[in-house]
Amino acid sequence: MKRYNAEKLKQLIIDSFMAAGLDQEQAEITGQHLIFADQHGVDTHGILRLPIYIKRIQEGLINKTPNLEWSNETNSSAVLDADNGMGHYITHLAMQKAIEKAKQHTISFITVKNGNHFGALASYTKMAAKQKMIGFITTNTAPLMAPTGGAERVLGNNPLSFAVPRKNEPPVVLDMACSNVAGGKLVLASKKGESIPLGWALDREGRPTTDPFEGFENGGVLLPIGGHKGYGLSLIMDILTGVLSGSNYGKNVNRLYDTSKVTGIGYSMMVLNIESFLPMDIFEDRLEDLLHMVENSKKAMDVERIYLPGQMEEKIIRERLEQGVPLPDKLHAELLELSSELGLDKGQYGL
Amino acid sequence: MKRYNAEKLKQLIIDSFMAAGLDQEQAEITGQHLIFADQHGVDTHGILRLPIYIKRIQEGLINKTPNLEWSNETNSSAVLDADNGMGHYITHLAMQKAIEKAKQHTISFITVKNGNHFGALASYTKMAAKQKMIGFITTNTAPLMAPTGGAERVLGNNPLSFAVPRKNEPPVVLDMACSNVAGGKLVLASKKGESIPLGWALDREGRPTTDPFEGFENGGVLLPIGGHKGYGLSLIMDILTGVLSGSNYGKNVNRLYDTSKVTGIGYSMMVLNIESFLPMDIFEDRLEDLLHMVENSKKAMDVERIYLPGQMEEKIIRERLEQGVPLPDKLHAELLELSSELGLDKGQYGL
Repeated sequence: MKRYNAEKLKQLIIDSFMAAGLDQEQAEITGQHLIFADQHGVDTHGILRLPIYIKRIQEGLINKTPNLEWSNETNSSAVLDADNGMGHYITHLAMQKAIEKAKQHTISFITVKNGNHFGALASYTKMAAKQKMIGFITTNTAPLMAPTGGAERVLGNNPLSFAVPRKNEPPVVLDMACSNVAGGKLVLASKKGESIPLGWALDREGRPTTDPFEGFENGGVLLPIGGHKGYGLSLIMDILTGVLSGSNYGKNVNRLYDTSKVTGIGYSMMVLNIESFLPMDIFEDRLEDLLHMVENSKKAMDVERIYLPGQMEEKIIRERLEQGVPLPDKLHAELLELSSELGLDKGQYGL
Repeated sequence: MKRYNAEKLKQLIIDSFMAAGLDQEQAEITGQHLIFADQHGVDTHGILRLPIYIKRIQEGLINKTPNLEWSNETNSSAVLDADNGMGHYITHLAMQKAIEKAKQHTISFITVKNGNHFGALASYTKMAAKQKMIGFITTNTAPLMAPTGGAERVLGNNPLSFAVPRKNEPPVVLDMACSNVAGGKLVLASKKGESIPLGWALDREGRPTTDPFEGFENGGVLLPIGGHKGYGLSLIMDILTGVLSGSNYGKNVNRLYDTSKVTGIGYSMMVLNIESFLPMDIFEDRLEDLLHMVENSKKAMDVERIYLPGQMEEKIIRERLEQGVPLPDKLHAELLELSSELGLDKGQYGL
């Protein structure tokens, strides 16, 4: 796969959004969080999505000029009605407010309604970690999973992320969905003609399947982590996001690629000010001690290194900073087409 | 298995704790939460543990007269140093404070250090749900799991619970540990000479095993839900409890049955006041709508009913209320021995 400079791709993202009608602030903030995914190796949430975001803006399914309305504001909480604005932008603003509130009042919890897909969750929890606080965010997604015993998509795999700051190292970052694997893995296996392990999905009748097409594209359901545990966790995340925020929930959350309607996604985020509980240097020393315990514990046979959550991504960041972001030919062609459609000079972005 | 009246068993618990030196308030609160587990079918966390709790009190490994010290108190947060007091009692007090704070200030987050095993988590989150708020609690446990790639117990299966109030129904209650199954399941399989499915545990060298003895009692490690996801979730829960509270963490958390030292467990709890985000009746209607979507979704073949998190337990509550709590003969004998040792009249408890 050919590689491309991340800074230039980020500029392409920003210019594309501005050409589609976002103002500079929205475009830049969105660009920052979108390229974050590519820099971290979360390729499914990065520039791959640029064409669909632009399409949704063009078709009026993302509001270019949202009327952001804050309500129910207290020292430690608030509700944002994002008026169907660009997801990355509104999530960034909400996390900024959560950080400010936690800085002053220990802890904060903010819900966002009428949101949109906002890419990699870790990009927002790391904002809190940069300020020496613990960040948490969760969102609901279009339905992909069934409850335990079910055979119909009624719940998203509703991801959640935590980021915890470390002393002299990048933060500990958890960013996980509640399904064992993403649907994309089944699409890929299906394309390659490979079978999938039991435990990834059920077919549309609720039977365990090793056929990736039956498990996903033909109407199957993804299986949650830990069976009923992941089902429960996913349901709770939908309650904390869709139900509590006033957004869509369950089957009513719409797919990003369904351009017949808005997504209606909800989010929740929480920030904890560590210093309200423990002096920062003591917290940091204790955390390093725990992490060293984990990293230096006995390895399974043939394992060279134990990774902390987020460390694999840090390796990718360094590699992509030096060598660029790999783009599949098909995506490269789509980006060329998009830039020409938007009247942008592809040479400027190294495409 | 013979069944016993829950109210009488609760009285046995209370009288046993008082005979061992707890004051009446501590004994009654502990009794309430301990019998909760038996009433809900969480048999591993109920009266089964009475003998070891009494033993720990008698040996000075649980402090009968803890000097509870609150610090870092703000409108929405506090730190409790529980001085190695009885786990159920201190967790109850901390949750009460969290509820009071959330009632007045939207959200609260409380950490507890120097705690002890406190039984079924749901017993505390349901306190918040009873007050029409969302409750969350997590604790670290003695190490049972390895990080992904590891073969040594360095992390607990650090459970977490959420409870969400419903309109005219018992709350939605999630109470889950981060391992696929509890160690007790492997002990049982080992006793019965049965093999276990791959995915439950690794042996002490980090190899997948179907031998329950190798997977647990011989030094193996339990596997986390969703592989690296459950590992990450468990690590984050240890950071939120052990590290942030100032308690033991990782390998340093001690086992309940190791009577050579205190456990040093930490907890964190959060309460969210729903009304700060959405009027209660709107929240309730939206939640019912989501839950009906889930309950009434298409079932897998041969499935009769889809259960919401917590509903299986509600079925058990009703059954045990009518028919009593089943106790294995061995446990019954232990309770008889305990009551005689403590000078209690067994007849009084229907034993």
